[in-house]
Amino acid sequence: MSEDAASAGLLSDTPAPGVADVRAAAVRIAPHVHLTPVMRCTAIDDMLGARVHFKCENLQKVGAFKFRGACNTLLSLTDAQIESGIATHSSGNHGAAVALAARLRGTSSVVVMPSNTSAVKQAAVAHYGARIVHCEPNEQSRTETLEGVLAEEGRTLVHPFDDVRVIAGQGTAALEFLEQVPDLDIVMAPVGGGGLLSGTATVVAALSPRTRIIGAEPAAADDTFRSFRAGHIIPVGVPDTIADGLRTTVGELTFPIIRKHVADIVRVSEDAIVEAMRLTWQRTKLVIEASAAVPLAALLEGAVDVRDARVGIILSGGNVDLDALPW
Amino acid sequence: MSEDAASAGLLSDTPAPGVADVRAAAVRIAPHVHLTPVMRCTAIDDMLGARVHFKCENLQKVGAFKFRGACNTLLSLTDAQIESGIATHSSGNHGAAVALAARLRGTSSVVVMPSNTSAVKQAAVAHYGARIVHCEPNEQSRTETLEGVLAEEGRTLVHPFDDVRVIAGQGTAALEFLEQVPDLDIVMAPVGGGGLLSGTATVVAALSPRTRIIGAEPAAADDTFRSFRAGHIIPVGVPDTIADGLRTTVGELTFPIIRKHVADIVRVSEDAIVEAMRLTWQRTKLVIEASAAVPLAALLEGAVDVRDARVGIILSGGNVDLDALPW
Repeated sequence: MSEDAASAGLLSDTPAPGVADVRAAAVRIAPHVHLTPVMRCTAIDDMLGARVHFKCENLQKVGAFKFRGACNTLLSLTDAQIESGIATHSSGNHGAAVALAARLRGTSSVVVMPSNTSAVKQAAVAHYGARIVHCEPNEQSRTETLEGVLAEEGRTLVHPFDDVRVIAGQGTAALEFLEQVPDLDIVMAPVGGGGLLSGTATVVAALSPRTRIIGAEPAAADDTFRSFRAGHIIPVGVPDTIADGLRTTVGELTFPIIRKHVADIVRVSEDAIVEAMRLTWQRTKLVIEASAAVPLAALLEGAVDVRDARVGIILSGGNVDLDALPW
Repeated sequence: MSEDAASAGLLSDTPAPGVADVRAAAVRIAPHVHLTPVMRCTAIDDMLGARVHFKCENLQKVGAFKFRGACNTLLSLTDAQIESGIATHSSGNHGAAVALAARLRGTSSVVVMPSNTSAVKQAAVAHYGARIVHCEPNEQSRTETLEGVLAEEGRTLVHPFDDVRVIAGQGTAALEFLEQVPDLDIVMAPVGGGGLLSGTATVVAALSPRTRIIGAEPAAADDTFRSFRAGHIIPVGVPDTIADGLRTTVGELTFPIIRKHVADIVRVSEDAIVEAMRLTWQRTKLVIEASAAVPLAALLEGAVDVRDARVGIILSGGNVDLDALPW
């Protein structure tokens, strides 16, 4: 962590990256990640009476922003850690991201996945070269299985979000975004564990302080919304949302950053998520996953006043089972 | 038509645009069209052992390259023609393109559409402001209905492909493409009426003569393939292909240009079209329509030797009924 981060004065004393860490991450991962394009869509602008810029992390390697954080973390590990291999748990994009990042570093990876994970997602993780270890589809089994792998095989954990290297890596998307569209009034990102939102907030608060940072969350998994209002983390129950990337409880490291910099967390219905996902496919010709549609869903439901505003939305990912579309 | 075109020495004496006409079209339409991005996909490259560059005309206005030709034509009409309004026939993208181009010129448009055209496509055409006139779903009714509209209302026809202004407009996609990727070994485009392929051929033959130009066509609508080999136009019967943009017979103006400059026309199966469409969605996160998948389908079937080649594919459009996907 840099001087810059230390001086950021977080509400709690948990570690947090500063914008200098994000800049360092951007340099570190530059040879390996895509500088993703930003797109606009006249039809969506007209519909909302706003100017909406979509940062296309669905076009990132492995089809999601997750590769930024995984790549930054893998490139930050010591030679000894690399030699012993890495491990993580994931039911989706983070697993694929870690697998590819591990391959780039020439090391092996293990991804703990619930036994009921879809074949498509398991295939993606396996495609990038990870060994999959199954667990029961509950948190206790997942934790125990992962701890077993870490202990027995001496592997290093790459956390899906609660790690300053991961947060700094995810923040590189916002760093690019602000360079591509410097005058945003509002920046929105979906929030699950909070890695993307906290990384985005770190960058935007430092470099564009007048820009409002808003997180969007499924109402069916609204732990961050409730935690944000309560001032402490309220764990999510058993969330039943189509936005499968956002079922996690916000993290110990990500939450204080979100609390400090984010203007608001808004909630959306499942119907709006599906509508926003479909609208994006139809109008922008971009395949996005349900989790990526959550910020636009909030705009469709009028949860944020965006009239005449320049809005930036991070489309977090595009990994979808084309045989199980929600319409 | 420019000097350049006149000196191009076509096989027949039908009019044809030259590269100077395409350059003029590019300048003319520049304020109104998107400079579409070019994308690559590691997974598809690895699969084919080639370097494939996708020119994303699915991200063009109205979701298809068709807007280029319609826009160039509308901007080339006289004030008197504009005053009397325009008309065309289309079961899809050309109708939407003409409607939007007419709106930009502040004139009215009529689009003759078969009565069985899908509601989605009719809605798109209506959305851009055209008046729809229905005909029976056969060529005779379509021609008679359109001729009636032209005669009774004094409107000017904007042909879907057989017009030098339309061909020059479609060629602007290739003009951009060669600037974005200057060293292509092969350029591929789908072929229906031949507007895109002839425009592409006009540009590529003039500016990158070592690049092989290849048209791809559904085997179920292989009139251009057969015409190319016969040396004269053999009309298509009643084509039954999912690639609904490619059901038309190649044109009187487009065919001589294709014959002169195109290295080969290859045919693909319906299964390969669906596979290529799905692969593109899954891997590139781009929504493309079946017609746009035809060149990649040819590569999947091994119809073109692309090993170690730099291949450019024009993704012609992305307008799809999301409620009727072919898988």
